[in-house]
Amino acid sequence: MTPPVDEYPTRSNGSVELLDRRHPVVYPSVHGHGGGWPLSTEDVERFDRDGFVVVDRLVDAATVEALREEVTRLATDAAVAESGRVVREPGGDAVRSVFEVHAVSRLVAEVVTDAGVVGMAEQLLGSPVYVHQSRVNRKPAFAGKGFAWHSDFETWHAEDGMPTPRAVSLSLALTANYWHNGSLMIVPGSHRVFVPTAGETPEDHYRQSLRRQEVGVPSEEALAALVARGGGGGDDGGGADGGGVAVVTGEPGSAVLFDANAMHGSTENMTPFPRTNLFVVYNSVDNRLVGPFAARAPRPEFVASRRFDPVVPVGR
Amino acid sequence: MTPPVDEYPTRSNGSVELLDRRHPVVYPSVHGHGGGWPLSTEDVERFDRDGFVVVDRLVDAATVEALREEVTRLATDAAVAESGRVVREPGGDAVRSVFEVHAVSRLVAEVVTDAGVVGMAEQLLGSPVYVHQSRVNRKPAFAGKGFAWHSDFETWHAEDGMPTPRAVSLSLALTANYWHNGSLMIVPGSHRVFVPTAGETPEDHYRQSLRRQEVGVPSEEALAALVARGGGGGDDGGGADGGGVAVVTGEPGSAVLFDANAMHGSTENMTPFPRTNLFVVYNSVDNRLVGPFAARAPRPEFVASRRFDPVVPVGR
Repeated sequence: MTPPVDEYPTRSNGSVELLDRRHPVVYPSVHGHGGGWPLSTEDVERFDRDGFVVVDRLVDAATVEALREEVTRLATDAAVAESGRVVREPGGDAVRSVFEVHAVSRLVAEVVTDAGVVGMAEQLLGSPVYVHQSRVNRKPAFAGKGFAWHSDFETWHAEDGMPTPRAVSLSLALTANYWHNGSLMIVPGSHRVFVPTAGETPEDHYRQSLRRQEVGVPSEEALAALVARGGGGGDDGGGADGGGVAVVTGEPGSAVLFDANAMHGSTENMTPFPRTNLFVVYNSVDNRLVGPFAARAPRPEFVASRRFDPVVPVGR
Repeated sequence: MTPPVDEYPTRSNGSVELLDRRHPVVYPSVHGHGGGWPLSTEDVERFDRDGFVVVDRLVDAATVEALREEVTRLATDAAVAESGRVVREPGGDAVRSVFEVHAVSRLVAEVVTDAGVVGMAEQLLGSPVYVHQSRVNRKPAFAGKGFAWHSDFETWHAEDGMPTPRAVSLSLALTANYWHNGSLMIVPGSHRVFVPTAGETPEDHYRQSLRRQEVGVPSEEALAALVARGGGGGDDGGGADGGGVAVVTGEPGSAVLFDANAMHGSTENMTPFPRTNLFVVYNSVDNRLVGPFAARAPRPEFVASRRFDPVVPVGR
């Protein structure tokens, strides 16, 4: 059997030249299901152009409230902690992330399989999808640390063996995402460029990288080039436009869909407002994982699922 | 001679109960000078209510450009570095701040004494003013660390002997201040509450605190109370209001005036956009420094001037 071709080489000690993306961002939505797709044509065009699109009021207030309670329960549940799914803040005990939450919470599973939610991913990726990863990211008030700039796909390709960036992430706001409490920063248009990173993947890298990422992070030069290149709109930042960096803010219940290869990061949270988001990665069933392209062993199932069963949308 | 009464006790190991401010925020602008004051009645009311006010286009583009070049020169000037005026980033060599810049730069001195600039401070404080401190805060691209939440007055009172908060800070943007590159966060209305902090002032505290502040920082409980208390408007943060924290953004040449006791801070700068501001503190000549209220020795002159000569406004 021939090993799969690596179309996005990374984690070498050699060249880290930027590569043009070799695959589409949006795939034709071939399989009709009656009732139309959830995203408007404008939303799909915006996603294609910018690499992300914001959806207001994806989930109603009662569900958000229930999810918030569920997250508090999961973050303090001894069995969940013992299962290894919990990642804590660097230099502290505060819970930063809980992984594979759809497997341990019926409520989360209901949201993840809801036709209105999963339908957006199917619409963009043009196929049935499965859940590659789910997690809750809590950025605790006063203490939540940021996430360095990165492309998720760069990690998923190198460490999980995801062949192409035919995957989309959904980040659902469970608390208000303000300008100031560590919300998602994203470089519009960056999803069209693959930024290889330098340095070999250390063994069991996920234990460290999920707390504070150091390998798999683009150079300052690469990031500056991506931002200068532009490709979509920055922010209207109170009289100064975002200069090629967008900050995604929103009320609880709003969501952002972003491309697997979109360059993103976030700052620390110094405010009294926790910033808690439910994060779900849908991967195309036609983009199943193979062996890691740049790591010795695949990451654990709770970080990168290898059960490729398509999500059956509920309520379609 | 009786020692001055301490109306804002802090840095004790005892009570850290919030105190209502004992002095006005805005003083009547008694001494006319022909031609009227620079701030509108609405601006003054906003400053009185929120503790800050934004001024668009305070300085023209050519002056901003010249100031930016001057700052680069000052940050790399060996004589300035040797004079002790330069503070570097925690854990790095990048220049974080340069102090007393109006004393080493004619261009900065011209801006600081410009009638249109100093007039705003005179208008708010109702008296002639002198320069308590000037500095450039550079928050370098990718590497600039944040500033913890604090009231400047709390430090100036404890460590410099400033009797009352009859002082105002001007922060002039020399680069774009975006939502995302570590811009000023301020708690509207917080200027009306004095938050004592716990813990004695260490010797030569300024050497540490100017890099990363740990003493003189309010408790999480106090900060949460200030924010919850409200008093002014938060941000219109893309569909989610600021919940009691405002982020001050603006084009180069814009400025914000903020009260000495306003609670403020800022996050790190992860973006490719340096965020450089010129910061000038005008104190009322009727509010001269005495001995420190909670430190063994006063801080150096370049951090807290004891030459109380009123600024003579140029161009009035």
